[in-house]
Amino acid sequence: MRARDLAAPYPTVHADAPAVDAARILTEAGRPALVVVDDHDHPTAILPASQVLRFVIPRYIQDDPALARVVDEEFADHMCDSLAGKTVAELLPREGPKLVVVEPDDNVIEIAALMAGNRSPLVAVVDGKGSKAPMMGAITVASLLSGLLPERITDPG
Amino acid sequence: MRARDLAAPYPTVHADAPAVDAARILTEAGRPALVVVDDHDHPTAILPASQVLRFVIPRYIQDDPALARVVDEEFADHMCDSLAGKTVAELLPREGPKLVVVEPDDNVIEIAALMAGNRSPLVAVVDGKGSKAPMMGAITVASLLSGLLPERITDPG
Repeated sequence: MRARDLAAPYPTVHADAPAVDAARILTEAGRPALVVVDDHDHPTAILPASQVLRFVIPRYIQDDPALARVVDEEFADHMCDSLAGKTVAELLPREGPKLVVVEPDDNVIEIAALMAGNRSPLVAVVDGKGSKAPMMGAITVASLLSGLLPERITDPG
Repeated sequence: MRARDLAAPYPTVHADAPAVDAARILTEAGRPALVVVDDHDHPTAILPASQVLRFVIPRYIQDDPALARVVDEEFADHMCDSLAGKTVAELLPREGPKLVVVEPDDNVIEIAALMAGNRSPLVAVVDGKGSKAPMMGAITVASLLSGLLPERITDPG
């Protein structure tokens, strides 16, 4: 089994798109992260939804979450303002998870090894080789486990 | 909005269950992680699917994923053997992500702050207080973003 057999559609967002688009796509897709793509639709980064929260939630509340108990409704209404005028690229964490990119012919054990080594919940599959190859889909760790362990999922011990 | 309003069913596994059960539940549920619970059904840890891969994929292939290209079918058939006889507790990473546990009355901004601070994709919601309170569900970061930003998801800039 190869990457192309496991690649499935996955939500993406352009690096230069408005940050609020990323928030909207995350809520609509119900995924823990988006793949960020460049002008060639080549995947370049992963944007965890928790990173969007880091922008939306003021620093002093992140440092002391109990303060959230005393903020009011109006405060909540304006939280999203911190995303205004920002791009997706500006949201990306400096020390964030690395996006693993694989090619269509890469085999399932190689992909599993990459995911395990990077503790990655997701790899992007590109259609071709090189830095301009567009994304053809993604493989989540759950779908990879299914592909890897289809009928061997009983305890042989 | 409070934790109880956002809590939804989420797959769990007991700490003393066979490791292969965790692999099976992960593949069936299609989730990137499971919540590990103790004998009181109290949530104690998070088990990322990538951690299961770290057990299944031999160390030398994790160190050099290109070696995966030269292993054969029989090898793949026996990969799962490394899970045999192990419990879920034995799979848990020593330096893994911390499970954030919240109570039913905790508010959405407080939960968002905890998720942002811990870069957590998931919090467990317990039904009550203390270390014996059973899990009533979980909140994913995507569902939290939806709850936090229901109608404010346009760029006000």
